[in-house]
Amino acid sequence: MEPQSQVQSGKSVELTITSPLDLLFNPRSVAIIGATPRENSVGGVITKNLLTKFKGKVYLVNPKYDEVNGTKYYKSVLDVQDEVDLCVIAVPAPAVPKVTDECIRKGAKVTIIISGGFSEVGEEGARLEEELKKVALNRIRVLGPNCIGVYNAFNGLDTFFLPEDRMGRPKPGPLALISQSGAVAGAILDWAARRNIGVGLAVNYGNKLDINEAELLEYLAKDSRIKVIVMYMEGLKYPGEGKKLLDVLREVVGIKPVVVYKAGRTKAASGAVKSHTAALAGNYEIYRAMLRQAGVIEADNLTDAFDMAKALATQPLPRGNRVLVITDSGGMGIQSVDALDTRGLQVPELSESLQEILRKQLPPLAVTRNPIDLTGSATDAMYKFVLDTVLPTSYVDMALIIALMQIPGLTINLGNYIVEARRFNKPIVVVSFGGNEYVAKFERHLEESGIPVYHAPHRAAKALWALYEYAKIKGAIRGWVA
Amino acid sequence: MEPQSQVQSGKSVELTITSPLDLLFNPRSVAIIGATPRENSVGGVITKNLLTKFKGKVYLVNPKYDEVNGTKYYKSVLDVQDEVDLCVIAVPAPAVPKVTDECIRKGAKVTIIISGGFSEVGEEGARLEEELKKVALNRIRVLGPNCIGVYNAFNGLDTFFLPEDRMGRPKPGPLALISQSGAVAGAILDWAARRNIGVGLAVNYGNKLDINEAELLEYLAKDSRIKVIVMYMEGLKYPGEGKKLLDVLREVVGIKPVVVYKAGRTKAASGAVKSHTAALAGNYEIYRAMLRQAGVIEADNLTDAFDMAKALATQPLPRGNRVLVITDSGGMGIQSVDALDTRGLQVPELSESLQEILRKQLPPLAVTRNPIDLTGSATDAMYKFVLDTVLPTSYVDMALIIALMQIPGLTINLGNYIVEARRFNKPIVVVSFGGNEYVAKFERHLEESGIPVYHAPHRAAKALWALYEYAKIKGAIRGWVA
Repeated sequence: MEPQSQVQSGKSVELTITSPLDLLFNPRSVAIIGATPRENSVGGVITKNLLTKFKGKVYLVNPKYDEVNGTKYYKSVLDVQDEVDLCVIAVPAPAVPKVTDECIRKGAKVTIIISGGFSEVGEEGARLEEELKKVALNRIRVLGPNCIGVYNAFNGLDTFFLPEDRMGRPKPGPLALISQSGAVAGAILDWAARRNIGVGLAVNYGNKLDINEAELLEYLAKDSRIKVIVMYMEGLKYPGEGKKLLDVLREVVGIKPVVVYKAGRTKAASGAVKSHTAALAGNYEIYRAMLRQAGVIEADNLTDAFDMAKALATQPLPRGNRVLVITDSGGMGIQSVDALDTRGLQVPELSESLQEILRKQLPPLAVTRNPIDLTGSATDAMYKFVLDTVLPTSYVDMALIIALMQIPGLTINLGNYIVEARRFNKPIVVVSFGGNEYVAKFERHLEESGIPVYHAPHRAAKALWALYEYAKIKGAIRGWVA
Repeated sequence: MEPQSQVQSGKSVELTITSPLDLLFNPRSVAIIGATPRENSVGGVITKNLLTKFKGKVYLVNPKYDEVNGTKYYKSVLDVQDEVDLCVIAVPAPAVPKVTDECIRKGAKVTIIISGGFSEVGEEGARLEEELKKVALNRIRVLGPNCIGVYNAFNGLDTFFLPEDRMGRPKPGPLALISQSGAVAGAILDWAARRNIGVGLAVNYGNKLDINEAELLEYLAKDSRIKVIVMYMEGLKYPGEGKKLLDVLREVVGIKPVVVYKAGRTKAASGAVKSHTAALAGNYEIYRAMLRQAGVIEADNLTDAFDMAKALATQPLPRGNRVLVITDSGGMGIQSVDALDTRGLQVPELSESLQEILRKQLPPLAVTRNPIDLTGSATDAMYKFVLDTVLPTSYVDMALIIALMQIPGLTINLGNYIVEARRFNKPIVVVSFGGNEYVAKFERHLEESGIPVYHAPHRAAKALWALYEYAKIKGAIRGWVA
């Protein structure tokens, strides 16, 4: 199979593709070829993951074992009596073509080949990959080889072979991740788990023998549990991939936001990209132009990508770029205006009549112009009053709320007032900064109620910017003008 | 007292100033005017802080009380028999001039006036501030009014009136903070406490009636416990301050690094700066030029400032800009090269002979060019081997080590190898990313051993950049050429 034809196949056989890609994420039954009871080995972690968490049927295949702890092992996948939707292969590279052929004969529609030792290790591996390609072509869809596969928080399908004590698993949620790097994907999921960020689906495609970014995007666009797709990429590999990716991104962006962090931006990094994934980092300006053209939200690093994604997943789109800033710290208010202004968002001065209404209720020290500075004497009730008075007016399109919870006048109840303000159907983000347990509790409460929290004004501003950008993109698509 | 003359006085009376500024941070005895047993009130939190933590003598002054829980209250500071070095004043604004006069008559050399209600609240307050100025001028040095004062982790002097359950207190350490915003200072200390970052001294100067940034900088430059000064500023207030600050910064930077985050950069924020601290945000380009001229390391936000400060406080200065990158994730290696290159730092390809030595010991999949990618098969021993082989050579000036601890081949012991590499006397920073407890333990171990850890490549790269910048600055000062 030539790379060119592989790329083009994505579109032409869409009807038949739908099913294997769906089975990749949502199989009814999985066979693990290379299953093992050996803890912390690649096959061992996958075996444990699927046996303990996967909500479908699991068949273990390894000729070395008959039964371990009451669980049957099959000599070959061909010995399994039931249907097998997905085969996960974690055997040494030389054995992969043979077991893949068995998976095909068993009738499996898709396989995740975890095993490394293919084109990424040099000539001999590349020959093996060619052999594998010949076996698989048009007979079974392949994710990998040399990948960590799929994490599905909804059904417990988890081929990420990093043990739980080293890599936390995020809760189900509206974000999906497509990562060109397995290690980066593992670290992000670990990070997201700790921060209670819901990542429903994650996938790493390794050497990309068959299934590529574009197809994964197409699938994720259709999965209604996913609200935002985050993509980590280093570079494309095959001729024609760029065009295909651009076409697919354009389509997907019309359905849900896509946030992309493209690494390998500098010339200095291009060598490192090549030795990492045999991809071409390419000229970043060309990538950037492509991503913009497609309507993608571009991130500058990984946390940046998730900062924006969590706002895009939870907030309505704004109708303009005017931000109401409420703060209990003048300093944080200033930093927010800097950050918003730098991103092209406005902090409009409120009308004199509106300020008059605010002044009547707020203490004399409060600043009512916008940013509205409630000062260190702020209370929950003042925030509620300002939110309820200003956010519904036509002067502002979204709110950035700074709540430094170090001051004693604020309580966890402020979170309820902020959550209630969602009824105005305008985006709300919160800046909280500190480290004590009370702050953490406040932040958890908000995030669990669908209000994204950021630890710095510039991060919150960037999230609002992403919402505004996506609103413009969607507006353009729907013929709506900001 | 005219602002102009106040500013100039800093230099001319330096000999007499030294003592009060020293007593501001290191008094032998403190009187709290407005002490109270009422929990969570401003005076109450300060009273509790000092009674439980301060290592010197504490005298409580409040005519309302005689004795509470066995602790005596004085009617006036004049009733205290012993010497009083520092008076902390937390009484309603109208009473401040009178009690300040009593502090002077008692012989105190310096006072922290916590009370608000002065020039920041309008004309009446401004008149009160003028009255206070007349009382204090040339008789006692004043920090404030309208400030949260001083936090000294070394001796437990703590006038930050935010209760402990709302604001954690950082452990003693080599960083000092000068903050124009009290709320921002409180939030930073809370954040630093949680992240185990040692902040020895912190100070907020409020309305700056007398003691200003320049004098505080001069004091902190002399305090040998402090290795790096972080400054948060919004704008200057009085004519002539800029020139004085520039002169002092130049001097201080010759002694220890100063990291400044200047907020109020955009025109949009200048109104907010004015209503916050009555300061002039000014043209940011002018500030920026001044800071550069002074040899200050400029930060773009608060965490950025502390990221750089913790490297400057713990690492030796590099002799050049060439960085050794070691990674177990190709993706993170690429991101690091991007970030280093963007900051003007080099990731030089290692010589063929050196790579040959590495190849003999490392597994075939490892990339030896630099970044050195040990891949997901990395072990502690491989990191140690690369560090010991490459870091002492003349090819590199510093090291950025990426350790994604999600892979099972790495253990806490890697931390020991990294700490041992400090013997090569070249800067080392570590990138770790994730969230599980094992990662956290690894990071704590490193930071407690003087190796700064960052959660993203771009943050680590910026820390190395700061070290290189300061090395250049010091080189210029000492006539040393990079």
